[in-house]
Amino acid sequence: MRQKRVLQSNGSRPIGVFDSGVGGLTVVKELIKQLPQEDIIYFGDTARVPYGIKSRQAIIKFSIENALFLLKHNVKLIVAACNTSSSVSLTALRRNFKVPILGVINSGAKEATSLTRNKRIGVIGTTATIRSNAYTKQILKKDTCFKVFSQSCPLFVPLAEEGWLDGKITRDIARSYIAPLKSKGIDTLILGCTHYPLLKKPIAKITGKNIMLIDSAISIARSVKTLLKKENMLNKNRLKGRMDFFVSDAPLHFKNIGEKFLGKELINVRKTDHGI
Amino acid sequence: MRQKRVLQSNGSRPIGVFDSGVGGLTVVKELIKQLPQEDIIYFGDTARVPYGIKSRQAIIKFSIENALFLLKHNVKLIVAACNTSSSVSLTALRRNFKVPILGVINSGAKEATSLTRNKRIGVIGTTATIRSNAYTKQILKKDTCFKVFSQSCPLFVPLAEEGWLDGKITRDIARSYIAPLKSKGIDTLILGCTHYPLLKKPIAKITGKNIMLIDSAISIARSVKTLLKKENMLNKNRLKGRMDFFVSDAPLHFKNIGEKFLGKELINVRKTDHGI
Repeated sequence: MRQKRVLQSNGSRPIGVFDSGVGGLTVVKELIKQLPQEDIIYFGDTARVPYGIKSRQAIIKFSIENALFLLKHNVKLIVAACNTSSSVSLTALRRNFKVPILGVINSGAKEATSLTRNKRIGVIGTTATIRSNAYTKQILKKDTCFKVFSQSCPLFVPLAEEGWLDGKITRDIARSYIAPLKSKGIDTLILGCTHYPLLKKPIAKITGKNIMLIDSAISIARSVKTLLKKENMLNKNRLKGRMDFFVSDAPLHFKNIGEKFLGKELINVRKTDHGI
Repeated sequence: MRQKRVLQSNGSRPIGVFDSGVGGLTVVKELIKQLPQEDIIYFGDTARVPYGIKSRQAIIKFSIENALFLLKHNVKLIVAACNTSSSVSLTALRRNFKVPILGVINSGAKEATSLTRNKRIGVIGTTATIRSNAYTKQILKKDTCFKVFSQSCPLFVPLAEEGWLDGKITRDIARSYIAPLKSKGIDTLILGCTHYPLLKKPIAKITGKNIMLIDSAISIARSVKTLLKKENMLNKNRLKGRMDFFVSDAPLHFKNIGEKFLGKELINVRKTDHGI
């Protein structure tokens, strides 16, 4: 094991990504675009999905177990691709593990604060993410002059998973969640859940042209690239990375829904006993 | 322990009810109405909710663990109040445990077949319940001349939990799921998920007066009463039973949402380590 670690030192080791289910595949999609040469190990906790309605204590426990699973695969960096997990468990993860751990909250907050002109930022996410106030805290840490307006959108995840990505019902639901935020005069809206990029079209119909949408999947992929470059940990051994997907339940269901998220065929999906 | 069992022989032991989360409280509500003298121990597996999108194998494992938890509380009978669990795990539960175990599927199917006049029955439920074909199999076991039409309604659970129990969006979603069933000429519709009784109003607006709605919570409470009477296991010791609620995560969230399902205040909600 020790010898293997030495041989696979730094760059050639895979990037680990975990999520409560399929949503994190929007992050994988962006990682492939920005870092095509990297190997990726993905873990989706489909036995316990969704995290958005679970307690802080449960989410932290699940996230630590997920990180341990990825570490067994000798990952060089871990991405908590789940907004809910990032919002409540990042401190606990960083306290426990040596490997660099990045969460989607910080990247999204950073991008929003650099892009807003009127300093009025909207955030949408799951109940747990919004209740944690993680985005608000992160944004106000940068400057207390920002105004943050939040809204939980519990129906967006099932809508995305059901594949109702547009149409009247989806637009009506989007309007009922987002119109109150729009009325606050925001010029930037953080899509604070990895499922939401699939609903960009109906969301943009409500926000209109004057509100910028921040896709946290794009922001986190950029942060990963910056960190790997800075630490000299980029994979320079190959042109195209390998991808392996693990889930704690229902690999076929993950494959079917996941292909919509990844935008291409999902191969190498395996079930682990972790999580159930 | 042995002595305690003897003292608490038959009737005075509590009824055990489990569900993946809060939905089973619609069953508890009916049990209280029909059997007010009974003690009830409820377990909601809120750490792993929802079951409807999980695999057969995972649902069976979770259900066995839930039954074991209730048996530790010396229950005289177990109700699998979750349609998803009833549809896939009842055989495994009955194979493993001596105590009588009742599921919502059989009661709902029995009631529908006795009430339909044109023998055309509709069933709505979660993805896992509908995919299992449990209602169809149960109905056709009674008589192969019945025609069964099924529809999974994945947005109904989040709608009910979000508290969007009526209004335009909910009616539009109900129409998109139920209009195709209505066009098949059904005269009976089984609400095959314990969350759905909360959406009876918008569902009834689509089905109209000529389609009977079968509320599986009412049917299962009737089946429990019949069985306890037949086996001479009714609790004759007291006028009003005691209720205890256990969850595997987030007791406060359970209490808040659960009160809508139960229609009264929820006291005695405790968290167990089971399930996480």
